[in-house]
Amino acid sequence: MKSLKFFRLQTRAEVLTHYDRFAPVGVEELDLADACGRVLAAPITAPEEAPGFLRATMDGYAVRAQDTFGAGVGTPQYLDLKGEVPMGVAPTRGVGPGETLRVPTGAMLPSGADAVVMIEYTAEHPDGTLEVRRAVAPGENVLTPGEDVARGEVLFPAGRRLRPQEIGLLAALGIRRLAAYQKPRVAIISSGDEIVPLDEKPRPGQVRDSNAYLAAAQVAEWGGLPLMHGIIPDDFTALQKTLVAALDAADLILISGGSSVGVRDLTLTAIQDLPDSEILVHGVALRPGKPTILATLGHTPPKPLLGLPGHPASAAVVMEVLGRPLLLRLAGLNDPAPWGGTVDALLSRNLAGATGREDYVRVRLRREGETRWADPVLGPSGLLSPLVKSDGLVMIPLGVEGLVKGESVTVQLFGGASHEGAVVMPTLSTTL
Amino acid sequence: MKSLKFFRLQTRAEVLTHYDRFAPVGVEELDLADACGRVLAAPITAPEEAPGFLRATMDGYAVRAQDTFGAGVGTPQYLDLKGEVPMGVAPTRGVGPGETLRVPTGAMLPSGADAVVMIEYTAEHPDGTLEVRRAVAPGENVLTPGEDVARGEVLFPAGRRLRPQEIGLLAALGIRRLAAYQKPRVAIISSGDEIVPLDEKPRPGQVRDSNAYLAAAQVAEWGGLPLMHGIIPDDFTALQKTLVAALDAADLILISGGSSVGVRDLTLTAIQDLPDSEILVHGVALRPGKPTILATLGHTPPKPLLGLPGHPASAAVVMEVLGRPLLLRLAGLNDPAPWGGTVDALLSRNLAGATGREDYVRVRLRREGETRWADPVLGPSGLLSPLVKSDGLVMIPLGVEGLVKGESVTVQLFGGASHEGAVVMPTLSTTL
Repeated sequence: MKSLKFFRLQTRAEVLTHYDRFAPVGVEELDLADACGRVLAAPITAPEEAPGFLRATMDGYAVRAQDTFGAGVGTPQYLDLKGEVPMGVAPTRGVGPGETLRVPTGAMLPSGADAVVMIEYTAEHPDGTLEVRRAVAPGENVLTPGEDVARGEVLFPAGRRLRPQEIGLLAALGIRRLAAYQKPRVAIISSGDEIVPLDEKPRPGQVRDSNAYLAAAQVAEWGGLPLMHGIIPDDFTALQKTLVAALDAADLILISGGSSVGVRDLTLTAIQDLPDSEILVHGVALRPGKPTILATLGHTPPKPLLGLPGHPASAAVVMEVLGRPLLLRLAGLNDPAPWGGTVDALLSRNLAGATGREDYVRVRLRREGETRWADPVLGPSGLLSPLVKSDGLVMIPLGVEGLVKGESVTVQLFGGASHEGAVVMPTLSTTL
Repeated sequence: MKSLKFFRLQTRAEVLTHYDRFAPVGVEELDLADACGRVLAAPITAPEEAPGFLRATMDGYAVRAQDTFGAGVGTPQYLDLKGEVPMGVAPTRGVGPGETLRVPTGAMLPSGADAVVMIEYTAEHPDGTLEVRRAVAPGENVLTPGEDVARGEVLFPAGRRLRPQEIGLLAALGIRRLAAYQKPRVAIISSGDEIVPLDEKPRPGQVRDSNAYLAAAQVAEWGGLPLMHGIIPDDFTALQKTLVAALDAADLILISGGSSVGVRDLTLTAIQDLPDSEILVHGVALRPGKPTILATLGHTPPKPLLGLPGHPASAAVVMEVLGRPLLLRLAGLNDPAPWGGTVDALLSRNLAGATGREDYVRVRLRREGETRWADPVLGPSGLLSPLVKSDGLVMIPLGVEGLVKGESVTVQLFGGASHEGAVVMPTLSTTL
């Protein structure tokens, strides 16, 4: 057994730099219908232009714009109405000088036409002429071929998370299959002699396996695939056996539970004793969340292990602040605009920071007229109910003594994008 | 066939009031592991208290607090160390006056003890005494029974969306099954002679079925279950047959496509001709999104139909502004704190509003030092690419002439909570 090293507390920023050594997970092919929310594993190039033809954007009449020049309410122009372009087919005739064809929104323009006069500015006369009471410029009320997308244009880089509008654009271009990163598989191990499964009634001294459920729900919400590896007693051999199985099955290993010094030491030695393992972080300058462990296990490829603190509120904060960026890194996300997930509000009371640690305070948001207030929800990190009463976290930076009542703060909403800086990843190379 | 009524444009607020007539969908029983993100259909009451026993929150020594009073670095107190409480079991002995037992974090306190002295402030002596160098108050470093949750306490009301921390709390209480609203089933019908399926190469004048894909992705992201009902040509009988099938299969019907007057009229008459149908809205004071239809179909129960404009950007905006609140209404959501989904930024250029209509402008967010800018992304609503380049929408309210460069605006992020007011629903009665 290797000797147990002692580590200094690392800052959140230092922990995040360790993530560089972990590569995104493998790639799979997806149907477009299943791709929303997924992360592209390769750039996508437009196989054709869009729109593919000159298209009316209004109900009206296809014209040569120059034929309408000078038209006005008092000075209408008269064109020869030659019929109608039906939807969904190529027009069977063109528009010559002085001629026009009726077109519905979305129809293809006949050759010769370069604009559409809206129906509101026209009148059809019984003699087959169209009265035009407003001039149009070339290109007015039409979409030109390639105006939306040029053929060969790079639509999206690898690392882009697909939203509904990206799905819509890919559908318009007929792209039905794409390469996406797999959902990171996350093994969740509960450790602790006091932990019992949910369907067991805890005896005095025992508690149910709630942290694993909380972590699994977070993983699923953030796009991962939680794999429950059960409850392991505080036993070196059992823990190591489970670690080996998890390393085989998952891309990320979470160990939940075990805040006592004895159990942490057991976890550390079980990790260190595995081949190709290294403890990268043992203790983070966070409150709550100090007894957090980050390790790398195995080598094909090296996989991260995150050891979560045992107190539920600490574990939840560590997952938000450190677990989520790690999961997104593995998921291949490389989006430079993590805009969601924060709300600005005024702090409703003074808050003292934690010396030498970045401090995360749970807050509940409240609206009072035009003002949003962030009310701190205090309580020991062993409780779940303050977490349930909160909407998000306010961070007191390292080295700041505290925040003052009435100060404007940015609330990091639970489940939203993690702290803005934390999810901006260095550019990833694609594995496809 | 009933006569085609003509309607005045209704405001967004007026449209939302029509939603009152639609009840949440049915209820299903779920396993806790599948419940994150789902909406409770009935309140949940705590079946037991948590924690269930007096619990140590620190590694240290269980004491009677009064035995430590007066202890300090220069004035240590000495206690009789009587052994250790192991994790996960009830202590086999209590703590009498002047006695103490070693306890790890999470362990049950022995009877008689009411506090824990942290290990840092103690020293064990070879003669079996414990030196205590800091006094503790009763209740210090322990969680008391019921401190997190009292037995019989209402934990969550019906209509609450479950986040990971709610899952964690339910797990701690052993609640493995719960009643949730079903995911609303949303039928998506594409109409238009010009629309072809994704796997077909469009001929001149034809386009692929992209709006249906976009809407389906939005529905799925917002917690609904999209059901693709295919592409229907502009034909009264075919459309009505599909409407009847959709009414049978789904809780909400979306008709996507058909911006021309002729197709809209066809859709309206097809709806009106169905028994128990009523057109509630035909035209909304929105830009883009004016040619939107809201109808009610059937009576067991009445189900909403939303007719989306044909231009993709218009359809996407209508889905964000009107479709999402409708879906969340059907989903049973009754959350008074829709905090997510907006970001404040400064507008980077002047924007003129639309006369008589609420105006939604696509914007891209950009950071410049400490400032967030919202850059309007302009372009016809027939294009998809401006939507893809945008992060969200800025609303210019009805009656406002425009917004000025440098003004602070609230950006409604795509996929985030819809406009704050829009998702606050009247209290729903539970159907369980």
